[in-house]
Amino acid sequence: MEHGVSVVEIVMQFALQLGVIILVAKIAGEITERYLKQPSVLGELVAGMIIGPFALGGMIHIPGTHGALFPLLEGSTIPVSIELWALAQIAAVILLFVAGLETDLQNFLKYAGPATFIAIGGVVFPFAFGQWATVYFGFAEGYMDGSALFMGAIMVATSVGITARVLSDIHKLDTAEGVTILGAAVVDDVIGILVLAVVIGLARTGEFNWGTAGWTFGKAVGFYLTFMIVGLAIAKYIAGFLDWFKSRGATVALAVALAFLAAAVAEMFGLAMIIGAYAMGLVLSDTKLAHYLEEQTTAIYHVFVPVFFVVLGMLVDFRAMRGAMVFGLTVSVLAIISKVAGCGVPALAVGFNKRGSWRIGIGMLPRGEVALIVAGVGMAEGIIGPTIFGVSILMTMITTLLAPIFLVPAFQSGGSGLRNGDDGPTTKAEGGGGSEPTA
Amino acid sequence: MEHGVSVVEIVMQFALQLGVIILVAKIAGEITERYLKQPSVLGELVAGMIIGPFALGGMIHIPGTHGALFPLLEGSTIPVSIELWALAQIAAVILLFVAGLETDLQNFLKYAGPATFIAIGGVVFPFAFGQWATVYFGFAEGYMDGSALFMGAIMVATSVGITARVLSDIHKLDTAEGVTILGAAVVDDVIGILVLAVVIGLARTGEFNWGTAGWTFGKAVGFYLTFMIVGLAIAKYIAGFLDWFKSRGATVALAVALAFLAAAVAEMFGLAMIIGAYAMGLVLSDTKLAHYLEEQTTAIYHVFVPVFFVVLGMLVDFRAMRGAMVFGLTVSVLAIISKVAGCGVPALAVGFNKRGSWRIGIGMLPRGEVALIVAGVGMAEGIIGPTIFGVSILMTMITTLLAPIFLVPAFQSGGSGLRNGDDGPTTKAEGGGGSEPTA
Repeated sequence: MEHGVSVVEIVMQFALQLGVIILVAKIAGEITERYLKQPSVLGELVAGMIIGPFALGGMIHIPGTHGALFPLLEGSTIPVSIELWALAQIAAVILLFVAGLETDLQNFLKYAGPATFIAIGGVVFPFAFGQWATVYFGFAEGYMDGSALFMGAIMVATSVGITARVLSDIHKLDTAEGVTILGAAVVDDVIGILVLAVVIGLARTGEFNWGTAGWTFGKAVGFYLTFMIVGLAIAKYIAGFLDWFKSRGATVALAVALAFLAAAVAEMFGLAMIIGAYAMGLVLSDTKLAHYLEEQTTAIYHVFVPVFFVVLGMLVDFRAMRGAMVFGLTVSVLAIISKVAGCGVPALAVGFNKRGSWRIGIGMLPRGEVALIVAGVGMAEGIIGPTIFGVSILMTMITTLLAPIFLVPAFQSGGSGLRNGDDGPTTKAEGGGGSEPTA
Repeated sequence: MEHGVSVVEIVMQFALQLGVIILVAKIAGEITERYLKQPSVLGELVAGMIIGPFALGGMIHIPGTHGALFPLLEGSTIPVSIELWALAQIAAVILLFVAGLETDLQNFLKYAGPATFIAIGGVVFPFAFGQWATVYFGFAEGYMDGSALFMGAIMVATSVGITARVLSDIHKLDTAEGVTILGAAVVDDVIGILVLAVVIGLARTGEFNWGTAGWTFGKAVGFYLTFMIVGLAIAKYIAGFLDWFKSRGATVALAVALAFLAAAVAEMFGLAMIIGAYAMGLVLSDTKLAHYLEEQTTAIYHVFVPVFFVVLGMLVDFRAMRGAMVFGLTVSVLAIISKVAGCGVPALAVGFNKRGSWRIGIGMLPRGEVALIVAGVGMAEGIIGPTIFGVSILMTMITTLLAPIFLVPAFQSGGSGLRNGDDGPTTKAEGGGGSEPTA
């Protein structure tokens, strides 16, 4: 609590900030989607940069309030108030919980084979390039430095949401490439989350040796697998418990409560909160409640999730990025190359032709919210500084912008993406895979 | 921010607290509703008392976390963390926004006449008795003392929600008494909110004279009327603005943002946040979006509003109530007498017989969430202490418990509640008012 400011004033400021954040998020998101034909998350990030404490928010003073609208809190690992940051993190928990909930566990397992192979390529190369660039440009002292590790982890992320959204918009979700991209993106998310866990573990213990890495990875995988196996085994009992409640709205409230608890438990096990939330979503995705919960969380999602992205935008310190533009652009180029090649080459090996591999590579490009979440975790942990964070935002925005721009022509330039016509890893896909005529 | 605890740990503790709060709220609410046949809000309050920092929450220590689950923050006006308190207040804003949204403005205006007359009786007597008891028992130095004023304001409140819920459960909402009770409860809410504004104004300025009272009342009424007149005049443009957004979920998110902004603006004008939120709800209740917004805010309501009631329960300091049990029980008895007589006698004057007046008096009894909100504001402002707060909770629980217990037999003991059969103030009510046979 700040000195000289009463609890009532803090709460008033908080309500004002939330109102302004949601208002600008929705206006920026709408403009981005409707006029710029881009995912609204980009608009929300830019809105956050503009109204944040490093820009307008630090200067605007609303009459009847104390200080600036978004005062810059120096000396803290985060430049916004603890109540705003806490709510933004709760929003990230909701985001990952809903992402888990929306994952089709059965379909995911069906296409797991080739998708995993492609995803691994899309993890190894971006991670290595991210580490290398951070060391090369002098932002880390070695490959096991927290900044280098985090830059790698941030490069790994693939946004299932943005990819799915674009493919759905151009009606290519059920092509061989579409199904494979989604499968790989999901595997990529899971691996990315494990990589994050390992990186956090490494950075927290401060001992950067392979023993620590192995132990952290083992603990992360162990917790994750235990949680998933136990969770899936008792999923129907959890669903039964949630369904027992007859009072209105109890089921959805309890599901959200379980997501919060899983997030806290994951954190206690040395993992990130979002890992627990995603796992809880996955567990509930396989129950009869999944559809009901997805529907019921829609409004909560749309009210609170933009708060997270606007707050992430607010963390961008332009001063810190001034000396890092070359680094930022290099990282962005490496992010593109490593992902397109890292996924495209394995795709060639599992039955896709060059056209198909290009489509998959481009489809895996957008880093989206996952990269931002990872960067946000690094920032909150005090592991990465404003430079790496700013560069991550730049890279995320560039890759997220480029993906739809390249995806649409790549998919509409006709022809199957499979080496053997419609025979390939996705023959079970509805609509006969890539054999259908393209616009 | 506490010393020695990182931002990540604060957020983890926050997620854990929220998860526990929602979980116990829903379990307690379900038990209260299903087995005790009482409004779930009672269960939520009791749950808060049990898991709060003054009870179990201050003792339980979860492995892997720092300190107690709900550590008792001494030296602050509130015993819970600022992030939890801020979220609880945001939940109160959502509660009052939805209450405003659900109000049928046209119906309200139609029955405003007799309802207002009855409501005024239900304001004047409880307020005077509340003030008197506080002074008599030595908890205030005079009638213009902040504690006496707040006790009065807390006694005034009527919970539209609980009354409506019970009458709906026994299918008596459309009787003459039912419609009048709802109308009076709404007027009562509005007057109660104005009384709160005046009381806060008086307590804040510290000058307890009739000039200040008049100025504060004028400012409150002025702001409220200006907001409502301008709001209703531009309501369709606001609805048009919200409707302009095509991106999914934007409309509901923006409506909630407007509620937050209205809450903050009301606070800037020296009123309480909930006043602004309720007014914004009322403004939007008269637009074509009202039904859509009610539906869309349901899940948000059910996830977050219980947090507010559990946190209110957490504020109850049992130690502070030990010496005030006689005061508390006296206040509770006065709360019953003043409301039943204060509303019942005016009801006799506008066309109801003794049976009808008794029904109306009992129907106006439950103080519910409105009293708790008022008490919470007093606590946060530092105007009332833990004793007055605890007594308010006790009074609220007793009146809220008694109302359904008396209401059901009162309505089922047959016969019209009107002096002239079905001729009375509510002849326009669907179903022919009180003339229908009672079970």
